[in-house]
Amino acid sequence: VGSYVKAALTSEQTGLFPELRVLQVISAGVDSWMTFLPAGATLCNGRGVHGASTAELAVTLLLSQVRAIPRYVTQQAEQVWRPGERDGIADKQVLILGAGDIGGRVAACLGTLGARVTVMGRTARAGVAGFDDLSAVLPQQDAVVLALPLTEATRSLVGAEFLAAMKDLAILVNVGRGPTVVTEALLPELHSGRIRAALDVVDPEPLPADHPLWRSPNLLLTPHVGGGANGWDQRGYRLVREQIERFVADEPLQNVVVDRGANA
Amino acid sequence: VGSYVKAALTSEQTGLFPELRVLQVISAGVDSWMTFLPAGATLCNGRGVHGASTAELAVTLLLSQVRAIPRYVTQQAEQVWRPGERDGIADKQVLILGAGDIGGRVAACLGTLGARVTVMGRTARAGVAGFDDLSAVLPQQDAVVLALPLTEATRSLVGAEFLAAMKDLAILVNVGRGPTVVTEALLPELHSGRIRAALDVVDPEPLPADHPLWRSPNLLLTPHVGGGANGWDQRGYRLVREQIERFVADEPLQNVVVDRGANA
Repeated sequence: VGSYVKAALTSEQTGLFPELRVLQVISAGVDSWMTFLPAGATLCNGRGVHGASTAELAVTLLLSQVRAIPRYVTQQAEQVWRPGERDGIADKQVLILGAGDIGGRVAACLGTLGARVTVMGRTARAGVAGFDDLSAVLPQQDAVVLALPLTEATRSLVGAEFLAAMKDLAILVNVGRGPTVVTEALLPELHSGRIRAALDVVDPEPLPADHPLWRSPNLLLTPHVGGGANGWDQRGYRLVREQIERFVADEPLQNVVVDRGANA
Repeated sequence: VGSYVKAALTSEQTGLFPELRVLQVISAGVDSWMTFLPAGATLCNGRGVHGASTAELAVTLLLSQVRAIPRYVTQQAEQVWRPGERDGIADKQVLILGAGDIGGRVAACLGTLGARVTVMGRTARAGVAGFDDLSAVLPQQDAVVLALPLTEATRSLVGAEFLAAMKDLAILVNVGRGPTVVTEALLPELHSGRIRAALDVVDPEPLPADHPLWRSPNLLLTPHVGGGANGWDQRGYRLVREQIERFVADEPLQNVVVDRGANA
């Protein structure tokens, strides 16, 4: 991962490629590349390269809370064989906030397990509810998965009011960005046991020693390990190879963000 | 679950229903019902009622080991924020032994996460490899999920030879029956760290106090909580309702084990 170029090229560097037809990046975000994109070049992002790893963790965290894995890990350490109350995700209502690559993958996976999934994004479209419906939909959900970028609209979205609207014993999962959840509002809900959570991202991050979240009950905490699972680089190279093959074969490119008709 | 009738009806009881056209049970196994099935009655099983819960746990156990959830539960208790080596199930080879309802559900779910899944059953058919291919396929697998009934063919199937054929660092998941795995053969592989495991069923069961499995490294252990997650009874009633609706509408019944043409 150390060789992963996070900064965009400068205009001086992109100027070295006046014939550039396609710029393929392997990150999901492309904001920093937009400014320097040569006129006439199509820009493609790395949608799918990192999303798979993060979506997989979201599913893992949700299922771990539903199936009480943290409790059984503790019982195993105490050498206690005690089957507890059994719950499952089948037939449960799950709201996924964020209709991008991650949200779509989580929905597809949970759907195979019989969960009743609602995917919600900024703008309603086929298969995606709009945020306008949030207050109507939220109180029915057994679980809410946050797969949102951090924007002015999503910062502190999950505060006291949001949490109060959630069903008793509902599970909150966050694999997006920590500041989407107001930590101070979540803490009392976890301590009362009204809400359970599984968080891969928190605010502040990394979580300082002696922060109250460490000792919070009803919480599964992982240290921001959603993205970058082994193999993301191979997935990135595979995407690049497939895109080159499409380009050569005059087939439509995938993951097009800025379309300048590279294949036209 | 207390009201769940495990024993089949006697011939005296079934004799009370001479006009019986369809016998719908909500268990997966139907062996004990076969003897007393009135001539002319179609027998349907409860395929799908319990399998969803067990398949869900198999996915949960595999993903928990892949994403190191037990390690992070321990770190959380110790208030340590330390992202470790990240692995994922995408692009991994997963062998599912058992091509029934559970195996099929696990395959469908892991497929959405990008795993390369092989389902293996007693007899090869479309989408299912036969056990004859086991020795050829096993050494390539990053994970093996056991979703097998206990029969003479499956008892002690996973012994020293099977384990030795598994890839280094491969993960063994068992949600079928404990005696399919030879515990004494698994223990040294777990202690050396060559194999990791996640077991919902073990041999002996329940695991006695001070059994060496309790203190084994590289093991996630749950106390036989695969089946019977909350909601199985609702799923059973829903199956019965749907079957009645099919029968009334002269549509083909599902889950037919003995077909006497109830809808013919």
